[in-house]
Amino acid sequence: MQHLKIETLRWVSDHLEMIDQRMLPAEFKYIPAYSADEMANCIRDMVVRGAPAIGVAAAYGVALEALKLKHLPSEQFHQEIAMGFEQLAKSRPTAVNLFWALNRMKGRLVSIAEKSSESIAYELLVLAKEIHEDDIRINRAMGAYGAKLLKDGDRVLTHCNAGALATAGHGTALGVIRSAVEAGKRISVIADETRPFLQGARLTAWEMVQEQIPVTLITDNMAGFMMANGEVDAVIVGADRVAANGDVANKVGTYMVAVLAQRHNIPFYVACPLSTVDLGTRSGKEIVIEERAAEEVMGFRDYQWAAQGVKIRNPAFDITAVDLITALITENGVIVNPTLEKIAGLARLNKLL
Amino acid sequence: MQHLKIETLRWVSDHLEMIDQRMLPAEFKYIPAYSADEMANCIRDMVVRGAPAIGVAAAYGVALEALKLKHLPSEQFHQEIAMGFEQLAKSRPTAVNLFWALNRMKGRLVSIAEKSSESIAYELLVLAKEIHEDDIRINRAMGAYGAKLLKDGDRVLTHCNAGALATAGHGTALGVIRSAVEAGKRISVIADETRPFLQGARLTAWEMVQEQIPVTLITDNMAGFMMANGEVDAVIVGADRVAANGDVANKVGTYMVAVLAQRHNIPFYVACPLSTVDLGTRSGKEIVIEERAAEEVMGFRDYQWAAQGVKIRNPAFDITAVDLITALITENGVIVNPTLEKIAGLARLNKLL
Repeated sequence: MQHLKIETLRWVSDHLEMIDQRMLPAEFKYIPAYSADEMANCIRDMVVRGAPAIGVAAAYGVALEALKLKHLPSEQFHQEIAMGFEQLAKSRPTAVNLFWALNRMKGRLVSIAEKSSESIAYELLVLAKEIHEDDIRINRAMGAYGAKLLKDGDRVLTHCNAGALATAGHGTALGVIRSAVEAGKRISVIADETRPFLQGARLTAWEMVQEQIPVTLITDNMAGFMMANGEVDAVIVGADRVAANGDVANKVGTYMVAVLAQRHNIPFYVACPLSTVDLGTRSGKEIVIEERAAEEVMGFRDYQWAAQGVKIRNPAFDITAVDLITALITENGVIVNPTLEKIAGLARLNKLL
Repeated sequence: MQHLKIETLRWVSDHLEMIDQRMLPAEFKYIPAYSADEMANCIRDMVVRGAPAIGVAAAYGVALEALKLKHLPSEQFHQEIAMGFEQLAKSRPTAVNLFWALNRMKGRLVSIAEKSSESIAYELLVLAKEIHEDDIRINRAMGAYGAKLLKDGDRVLTHCNAGALATAGHGTALGVIRSAVEAGKRISVIADETRPFLQGARLTAWEMVQEQIPVTLITDNMAGFMMANGEVDAVIVGADRVAANGDVANKVGTYMVAVLAQRHNIPFYVACPLSTVDLGTRSGKEIVIEERAAEEVMGFRDYQWAAQGVKIRNPAFDITAVDLITALITENGVIVNPTLEKIAGLARLNKLL
């Protein structure tokens, strides 16, 4: 199988370039970012999206800001880079990878605070690149573990895009599917279109078509029909944050799919790098759910079809309770029937604690 | 409260006019039909949609054809009108009201077969008008029964459009809400947008805004979030067909909402005139589910956003098993915990058997 190289993010001499995911699949183009401010806007506007990709992007955002400020005297450098951290932290509230990546960058910054501004800047860039490469390696490890859960011939439903585009490459949920296909299993994908931003119709479908993995697109409200009709063998989704008890925050609609999967005895898997696990959040109830702009629900892009005068709700995520989750797939192994103890154990192994 | 007069269908001297529901809310215009063929196209293309409205439209389709043929000699008249019946019967497969209305028209035709073509034509038009008026009366009766199930302050989620636009007027699910509001209860509506045709965003939202009933629009995948968040007190939907055992075929996505409602102990009501009850269909498994064109899922109208090369499924309806249904609301009363016996009893009362 020909493997497409989707470079969601790429460093080009002195700046970062990102595939503009708002425009796919109609247009394939890269957008540059040269500062924390520009990167925060790209994250907020969903040029780049997906929890792991947001983490990598935020790390680069810090590095870009540091490089921009590298000629400043130390005190001023530290003042201004702190503002860069703040801008990035405010860009989106739900994906924990954003904060995880910013914390890693801040930890390094603190540990080398006495060095020259220029040295700090280059060391931060090196760390951002490590986070980037780690993400691909982690996705490959998750894929290898997860692929064993899928059988030859499985029809796998996924929601939103937890693919190469949501990560630095390979993908989390789609990474598992890719790894299973690479291992010789015939897997077909059912993609929920995922309103309002249509990540399923535009991104997941596009990624699968590129790699000639059979993919069937449905509207979000058809998942129940497909399950009741016996056309779904497994569900795999990504995660924006996993609470310590195993509750998962992911793209809105994930919860509905999980409830349906349970009713139909279909395994429901969450592919989540351990950077997505937030042991500081006890349960899903504590997770802040981002509400986005009304325009997204009123239509799509500039095409607004809804009746004027209507009120709008636009939560970007929902919480899937741990009792609905068959297993978490991480880079350190699969956690079947997740519990606080199992999750904390695996996270500790990873030296996250 | 100012009551908007939504005339979904109206007879104008020698033809029928229908609101073009494909264009709402951007454009409000009527489309005429002069024959069974034109009417069948309007039903297939969803100029007119909603099970009760389709029934009324089909009845007028027969009358239009009869009027077109009224100068033909008897034998030829009967041959050609039979073809008109066939065209209309083939227009959409799931809503039983279509067949119910055609059967009523055919029964009348047979009983007056010896009369002149012209007499038959006018008698069929009179019957179509009776079916039209009956539908409004029936919706009012359902509304009165259903309104008692809603409490002051209830936030009622609905899927698709079971409103005035789906009927000859007042509506089934929205008719219950209208009647509750008329009775002085403060009701607010949560409308699923209802991909792919967006009946919720375009039609339900529009109807509610016209009457100043508070309405909040969400994408279909947000219903679970709203329920988990404690923001839904009841669900009311319409029906395209109710099997003898109480299983309900309705717009795709209804099943998912029903499963979620059960998980959250939220009552799930189906407003269905007895013409929607099909005692000849034993359970939901026997109901033919229409699959519509791929283009509907690839985008909306001419705006296609999905990745090229993807496969599509587009079932227009799904089946909600009777164990998920709190009550059926009919024009003859409310059937709590529906069973074959209760449904057959009420239908017999209505002389449908």
